[in-house]
Amino acid sequence: MERHHFEADLEALKHRLLHMGSLVETLANKALVALMERRAELARAVLEGDAAVNALQIEIDDRCLKMLALQQPMATDLRLITSAMKMGADLERIGDQAVNIAETALRLLETPPLKPVIDIADMADIAQKMTRDALDAFVRRDSALAREVLERDDRVDHLKDRVFRVLLTHMMADPGTIERALGLILISRNIERIADHATNIAEDVIFLVEARDVRHHHTAE
Amino acid sequence: MERHHFEADLEALKHRLLHMGSLVETLANKALVALMERRAELARAVLEGDAAVNALQIEIDDRCLKMLALQQPMATDLRLITSAMKMGADLERIGDQAVNIAETALRLLETPPLKPVIDIADMADIAQKMTRDALDAFVRRDSALAREVLERDDRVDHLKDRVFRVLLTHMMADPGTIERALGLILISRNIERIADHATNIAEDVIFLVEARDVRHHHTAE
Repeated sequence: MERHHFEADLEALKHRLLHMGSLVETLANKALVALMERRAELARAVLEGDAAVNALQIEIDDRCLKMLALQQPMATDLRLITSAMKMGADLERIGDQAVNIAETALRLLETPPLKPVIDIADMADIAQKMTRDALDAFVRRDSALAREVLERDDRVDHLKDRVFRVLLTHMMADPGTIERALGLILISRNIERIADHATNIAEDVIFLVEARDVRHHHTAE
Repeated sequence: MERHHFEADLEALKHRLLHMGSLVETLANKALVALMERRAELARAVLEGDAAVNALQIEIDDRCLKMLALQQPMATDLRLITSAMKMGADLERIGDQAVNIAETALRLLETPPLKPVIDIADMADIAQKMTRDALDAFVRRDSALAREVLERDDRVDHLKDRVFRVLLTHMMADPGTIERALGLILISRNIERIADHATNIAEDVIFLVEARDVRHHHTAE
């Protein structure tokens, strides 16, 4: 197969990954807005939207395998294709987390709201920005931006611990809040996992650009 | 490079994956025994043991990339190598879950035990057997066994929901149990994720053996 054909395949692969990324960002955002603004219809849209993300992951894997089999790529191209498979897997799991958040949000919307937990909104903002920036870093082959994404993961972990302590205190002070506080704790864990997947994607970008494996030199999940 | 050299590389790759699998199984088992038998030294061993798992994932990825670059494998060999990368990622995350369980177990061991939750022990047994069987299915290229693994994931989800309801009831009846019950709920989620990763591995085995993508035709995470 000719080189320009291969280049076109690589471009198409990148576009599909970015399309998947923007779908997944939208799902995560809808799930979080559903929670914060108590809009059940948005949570239901997330549950319906996940199938498209799953289909995209299968398509991306399939493209990658075909390119590996037919084109025998080397060096950077090889890293791009194997990274694309990993990024597809991480994006798919961000979609799963959006679904988990939407499901818990639907349950929470059946009860009166608990006092808003500011830290959850902050966590959500950081995790969503990490996802977006990891994808931007991929598009622009910007390993400096990818490194910035890695640094933000600690902040998310810190907020997660604080959310846990605040909600635990709530529950102990007023057992009537237990079920709702528990739901929010689980959602904070889902957001933490979104940040972890964004971290994985940022690590893939660094590997792609610098051919250097930076995994496990940061905080573990 | 010659074919017999490539065969030797493939064999070495499989051995390293199995080695990683058995390390990860041991970590998960230690974390759960630490919880059930209240043995803090086992939980601490899990925290120390995770670095070896992380190192193995990097090594396996590196082997795979080299084989892809140097050998230009086709068909089954290509699927084996890309599946190995995915399986390595899932095994590494099972290791992360073992660490999460060990950390929570260490916190729980500082307080008197809550009434044992039988369902958590059952979940743990199923999830560990799923992991072991998924790896066995890989070794024996046994897609029937891999399909059995997939079927067991529903049972884990069902137990997870029951654990949640039982512990929620505990917490509401006796707020003094809130912190401990919460720890057990988080551990049940970690076990659920181990089962999810075992499911992913089983799906990779089916793809490897049958060249058929069965993802998302089962229960999502």
